[in-house]
Amino acid sequence: MTQNIYDNPQFFAGYATLDRSVKGLDGAPEWPALQALLPTLHGKQIIDLGCGYGWFCRWAQENGAAHVLGVDVSEMMLNRAREMTAAPQIDYQRADLETLSLPAASLDLAYSSLALHYLLNIDGLFATLFQALKPGGRLVFSAEHPIYTAALQQGWFVDNDGQKSWPVNHYQQEGERISNWFADGVKKQHRKLATWLNALIAAGFVIEHVDEWGPSVEQVAANPGLAEEKERPMLFLLSARKPG
Amino acid sequence: MTQNIYDNPQFFAGYATLDRSVKGLDGAPEWPALQALLPTLHGKQIIDLGCGYGWFCRWAQENGAAHVLGVDVSEMMLNRAREMTAAPQIDYQRADLETLSLPAASLDLAYSSLALHYLLNIDGLFATLFQALKPGGRLVFSAEHPIYTAALQQGWFVDNDGQKSWPVNHYQQEGERISNWFADGVKKQHRKLATWLNALIAAGFVIEHVDEWGPSVEQVAANPGLAEEKERPMLFLLSARKPG
Repeated sequence: MTQNIYDNPQFFAGYATLDRSVKGLDGAPEWPALQALLPTLHGKQIIDLGCGYGWFCRWAQENGAAHVLGVDVSEMMLNRAREMTAAPQIDYQRADLETLSLPAASLDLAYSSLALHYLLNIDGLFATLFQALKPGGRLVFSAEHPIYTAALQQGWFVDNDGQKSWPVNHYQQEGERISNWFADGVKKQHRKLATWLNALIAAGFVIEHVDEWGPSVEQVAANPGLAEEKERPMLFLLSARKPG
Repeated sequence: MTQNIYDNPQFFAGYATLDRSVKGLDGAPEWPALQALLPTLHGKQIIDLGCGYGWFCRWAQENGAAHVLGVDVSEMMLNRAREMTAAPQIDYQRADLETLSLPAASLDLAYSSLALHYLLNIDGLFATLFQALKPGGRLVFSAEHPIYTAALQQGWFVDNDGQKSWPVNHYQQEGERISNWFADGVKKQHRKLATWLNALIAAGFVIEHVDEWGPSVEQVAANPGLAEEKERPMLFLLSARKPG
């Protein structure tokens, strides 16, 4: 089973302080770019994989979605999502994305923000989503970038000229990476960008767009702390389509 | 016009010492992986973009290709290729890949090894190749990986524990990178992996496979110098298909 770090009280409390937890979608600097990859949501059947507080579920419903299923492995996250959600078009369900089961050809859009890099088995999930999407349906997700996750010990290096660099090592060694982020021993999976792409293609998806996200000039001006995100991508956004 | 560093005598002399220059395809550790992406060549019409000494042109002809056109910007490279080539199914032509013109639906395979990262305008080349390929035709190429090209000054960093890392910076800043490799001032273009993929998709191609190449255990055992290629990808291999 996928590590359920979000039900760790220390992690949960730390995560709650993030801009993207407090402000929702508008607290995530990559949201405008991720939103740009979405199809029109009006009347659509949607799943949000790793829905957390349910910010995207509510946004999708407010933007016309017929039904949104939010799935998360963390009961604490789902409790918060349920407290914050009133619309009857939204349901929440506790499930491990590694063993998720979904009815065939029932969905127009599968969406996920920064959850899939926790999974050991993305091949299984992509096969599940492919069969659950209607022909022409989309999978749009973000995940941590392999440049960010490659090193066994992750962190900036600053040279004598003040140039910040992100050291990459062990790129070819896919698998578990341990980081200390709000709690010790947070487990994530490093896999190459090629592995993500080939897994989608093997499941039957057509790659539509890839974005190795970085901040805009305007975003850095408004939030100077984002400047370091120009040096190396921390996450990537991907849009794939089921043919037909 | 693309920089023609290969006609610089100092560069040409240095390049001639590389394993991949002396031994041809078998001197390139990524060749088995690149070969695995190729369709069957029997009876096929093929172009080799940046053909250099013509090693691939000769290999393709020996493996059944009906015709191979080798294109390069360097007259010195083409002279060497012509000296080494006897088969009448192979032609060489001097051309800048930025302004190449090809007849429509005339090719089964467009191939390129480590040449396209010299080009300023890949959008134009991909459009040219898309129209020149027959429906179902393939584009298979390798290029320097953006992890390798990102930093303004490229080179390994070794920490106190002896861990080699490849510092990444300026990843989001696409454009010219200057390196000193056999000659000073060799110009290459850094572009994100996403940019390569999106340019292919925009031209009409379907992405078939991506390989952020690294050496096998057997290759490192046979050539211990390849061990550092496990730390970060130096190049990527890509296969794309024209639908139909």
